[in-house]
Amino acid sequence: MGLLDVFRASRKKAGSASLAKERLQILVAHDRAFRNRPSYLPKLQQEILAVIRKYVEVDMDAVSVNYEQDETQEILELNIVLPDSGGRG
Amino acid sequence: MGLLDVFRASRKKAGSASLAKERLQILVAHDRAFRNRPSYLPKLQQEILAVIRKYVEVDMDAVSVNYEQDETQEILELNIVLPDSGGRG
Repeated sequence: MGLLDVFRASRKKAGSASLAKERLQILVAHDRAFRNRPSYLPKLQQEILAVIRKYVEVDMDAVSVNYEQDETQEILELNIVLPDSGGRG
Repeated sequence: MGLLDVFRASRKKAGSASLAKERLQILVAHDRAFRNRPSYLPKLQQEILAVIRKYVEVDMDAVSVNYEQDETQEILELNIVLPDSGGRG
């Protein structure tokens, strides 16, 4: 479906402004066939962040979260600017 | 930066073909300022999958993985078709 191409092209365009920054961007999209079920994306977000923090230092001030929901889908976006000191090893 | 808009538009277009399917799509993009460090995205992928499996049944045959890497960034894409039986509750 070419989503990855779109994603990549969009990032290439934006990239020049943020050179040499360690940055993680995570998108989770959930197509929901069963709308009556409660969403688990907000919980999932917390757990994904916990997993990421095993690998890199994440300052919670450097995390921006975007969550959208409509009748058939939810999209969760996490943008994380990583400290220059880098990974946990 | 409008990435979410691009993502959403792309999904809307593709959506009509796959109505009423439970589906999760996860993109992890890592802008790497320090290229000499080993990548942790493949390990991260395993752990994110493990987290997701706490919430929904995931048939490993229903997971498609795409991984790309160039000098300055890595992108990991997971596409998961969820069983119609739905969540773990």
